[in-house]
Amino acid sequence: MHLRQLIDRETCTYTYILWDSNTLDALIIDPVLEQVSRDLEYINKLNLKLKYILETHVHADHITGASKIKDITKSKICYGSKTGVDGADILLGDNETFNVGSILIKALHTPGHTEGCTSYFIDGCIFTGDTLFIEGTGRTDFQGGSSVDTYNSVRNKIFSLPDETIIYPGHNYKGFTSSTIEYERKHNPNVGDSVDVEDYVLREKNMNRPYPKRFDVAVPANLLCGKENK
Amino acid sequence: MHLRQLIDRETCTYTYILWDSNTLDALIIDPVLEQVSRDLEYINKLNLKLKYILETHVHADHITGASKIKDITKSKICYGSKTGVDGADILLGDNETFNVGSILIKALHTPGHTEGCTSYFIDGCIFTGDTLFIEGTGRTDFQGGSSVDTYNSVRNKIFSLPDETIIYPGHNYKGFTSSTIEYERKHNPNVGDSVDVEDYVLREKNMNRPYPKRFDVAVPANLLCGKENK
Repeated sequence: MHLRQLIDRETCTYTYILWDSNTLDALIIDPVLEQVSRDLEYINKLNLKLKYILETHVHADHITGASKIKDITKSKICYGSKTGVDGADILLGDNETFNVGSILIKALHTPGHTEGCTSYFIDGCIFTGDTLFIEGTGRTDFQGGSSVDTYNSVRNKIFSLPDETIIYPGHNYKGFTSSTIEYERKHNPNVGDSVDVEDYVLREKNMNRPYPKRFDVAVPANLLCGKENK
Repeated sequence: MHLRQLIDRETCTYTYILWDSNTLDALIIDPVLEQVSRDLEYINKLNLKLKYILETHVHADHITGASKIKDITKSKICYGSKTGVDGADILLGDNETFNVGSILIKALHTPGHTEGCTSYFIDGCIFTGDTLFIEGTGRTDFQGGSSVDTYNSVRNKIFSLPDETIIYPGHNYKGFTSSTIEYERKHNPNVGDSVDVEDYVLREKNMNRPYPKRFDVAVPANLLCGKENK
């Protein structure tokens, strides 16, 4: 498997392009609308055959590039089955698996940041979206979010993966690009091994975070896979 | 070998921390002064024993964190032997090799962006600093820079590495985090397989780039390994 991690500097969002180096079948995870030209140019230069667009959740901080990429490449948009989006081609159940070339993808429902959050386990890597960050977790105060769910998703599902599994998150604001299960178990201040669920839930409850700047634009657009309303 | 890539968002500079997972002996490549606390906190959390600070060149766009890290960790600062810095512990010759735990490092003199530029080949990865970027090369109009040297360094040294070698550059401004020799040979507009040296040299000559914003602060500081003048 080949993997490229790409950054949208404006929103600190990570996009991932993965492909089978033999068949050149490819997938993209969490593309950002403003970066679609960059991403497609790269895909074209590598002669990749883009099969799937995987979304980890309905984003509230940026508009997805999924619809635009689908229109051009005829690839299929995939979301977790509990997202309630309109226009997805495939709604993935918990533990559902599928292939891109020889690459095996396993969808794991990991609710918490939003009700429909889904992580993808692929070849020793877990793409966690905003469920699990490097030394953090996504906020849980909108879109059916639940701190108890985040805690359980991470502790019971993500942390059951091998210690050496590489974590590729949806964002990082300090400049880190990846982590591991072992590191987050030891050092994650929200859901690490030493943190009780009650402590995390209480801390989340008292966070009083500001209303997300792009929420009112991003969420409605993303519930249509980023399709422009005309 | 374990590897973490870190980003300084302000200057789009990449720093790399590498370590032997058995001995926990570690090295850091191109640390940024403003990120030293972040980097050392990470190193401490992983219980790494930092042995070396490797610099790819005397940077003109940021001040190195080398001296500050050395003061705290007692690690050794390494530069290529043609950099002319004051305070380096080890000046590496071309093709010189050394170990950090079981990790073998090979220094390759790759002049062009500056006279003293050095790339590091480590376990199938090449850390190219500002000699070779993803679809680009570093500017060649100061610090003993030479477009002919860049062309030769890339074509004769870096591109002689296996096609699948992963390229980790010193910067990227579009959000890409890595590339490969194969990709750059095909797609690098300055030094790719299809570009003649004359074309690249002429293009560089006509670039008329602006004077680097931080040049007058960064270069004198970096010639002292980032040590503060008191």
